[in-house]
Amino acid sequence: MSHAAKVVFVSAGPGSADLITLRGLQRLAAAEVVLFDALTDPALRAFAPQAEWVNVGKRGFEHSAKQGEINALLVQHAQTAAGMVVRLKGGDASVFGRLEEELEALIEVGIEAEVVPGVTAALAAAAESQRPLTRRGRGRSVSLTTAMTEDRELQAGKHAATEVFYMAGRQLPGLQRRLLAAGWPASTSVCVVSRAGCADALSSSHSLHELAAASLLHQGRPTVVTIGVGATAVTSLAQRKSTSTRANPEPRLKSVVLPATALQP
Amino acid sequence: MSHAAKVVFVSAGPGSADLITLRGLQRLAAAEVVLFDALTDPALRAFAPQAEWVNVGKRGFEHSAKQGEINALLVQHAQTAAGMVVRLKGGDASVFGRLEEELEALIEVGIEAEVVPGVTAALAAAAESQRPLTRRGRGRSVSLTTAMTEDRELQAGKHAATEVFYMAGRQLPGLQRRLLAAGWPASTSVCVVSRAGCADALSSSHSLHELAAASLLHQGRPTVVTIGVGATAVTSLAQRKSTSTRANPEPRLKSVVLPATALQP
Repeated sequence: MSHAAKVVFVSAGPGSADLITLRGLQRLAAAEVVLFDALTDPALRAFAPQAEWVNVGKRGFEHSAKQGEINALLVQHAQTAAGMVVRLKGGDASVFGRLEEELEALIEVGIEAEVVPGVTAALAAAAESQRPLTRRGRGRSVSLTTAMTEDRELQAGKHAATEVFYMAGRQLPGLQRRLLAAGWPASTSVCVVSRAGCADALSSSHSLHELAAASLLHQGRPTVVTIGVGATAVTSLAQRKSTSTRANPEPRLKSVVLPATALQP
Repeated sequence: MSHAAKVVFVSAGPGSADLITLRGLQRLAAAEVVLFDALTDPALRAFAPQAEWVNVGKRGFEHSAKQGEINALLVQHAQTAAGMVVRLKGGDASVFGRLEEELEALIEVGIEAEVVPGVTAALAAAAESQRPLTRRGRGRSVSLTTAMTEDRELQAGKHAATEVFYMAGRQLPGLQRRLLAAGWPASTSVCVVSRAGCADALSSSHSLHELAAASLLHQGRPTVVTIGVGATAVTSLAQRKSTSTRANPEPRLKSVVLPATALQP
């Protein structure tokens, strides 16, 4: 990995400035220019006061006609800056971050890049809700998916013991329909976390047939939806015994536990 | 998320100390005791010189009879320490980190926990090889899997556009057989990265039918194997045209590109 790369893609983690890596901070501190997305924490500016900060305006899951403009801006700054250009991206650059398009644009003009990994939203959501994505003997795989296709259609399947969907909070009713159609039982545990990793993160816990009701709570916020084994609460043996008659016991979630009817209009 | 939790699970990231998050560093700096795994970077000690560092000895993907002992140690320190106990884990605690068992042990005795997310090896491997795990219009899902079952059997399927296997470098021949049996074409791109994120990280690039040969290169090192769309190199349009007659063009990988015969005995 070259440390003299002209452009460094720095994964900022989801939302909160303190979820960036130490390596990411070091690259920021050495940057001449920082091109940043709307989803990265403004508090990160304090770590690169020497740099010119350029807002490229893109938001996480909006279908963006602007990707071409961002590529052009990146190339332009890389060709004119004397020092290092940091491209700061929310979450992890390699997961739903359009990294391929921006790397391609640099390759076209022969500019070398480095990629600094980061915390992707699924991991922050799992930490926030204290629900590990993998479970011994029951969950050996986890799938990260964006439910929205290029044609703005929702798709969802049933491919792994645990699936995590990156999406907008308003899409939950559509996701519920798709997940039921894909064969997930109505009683399957679902955990919804919006603004995972941030101080105002919100978790809610549902059975799949109640998922749609959560959209009012998470609307307008970047949201990850976890379904399957990894969405179940971790409980003690004693708690498991005492709650075994309930369909979806959630004794440990510190945040909101929504009853099916709480948010229905 | 409580910041006064007695036990904080801190995800250290894969191998290299500078892949820990700022939040993780802050928790380390406030720790009275740090219980750490063999896979975390010793350089992290410099960030918590005030703490007692306890090696719990577990290595990433070894089947460990010691999990019960680790749980007991964690509870014992949490019950006797006056201040914060940090449980430092390699990679991200929520992905193949046995977090469930340790959370359960704390719940049994009523001790509150916090989880700080981190960089999981799949993300570090994607950054290292500059091969994004998701691709616009072609790769909307990525699956993270440990190929090894509890019975020490290798399993592999074909569930997502891109699949990442967390494993030992010596298991590559078995994985090749399983992936072919699962229906992946022999010409599918595979990217193997061992010690991702570390200074001595090693990447190699293969077609699936050549994967077994990579085991000599990666033997004895924690390894992630990426197959599918996310394992292909990012190339310029011109490069794609000029290499379109090659089965598996890899013009950008900075590390080792193995020919099929290079490492066969």
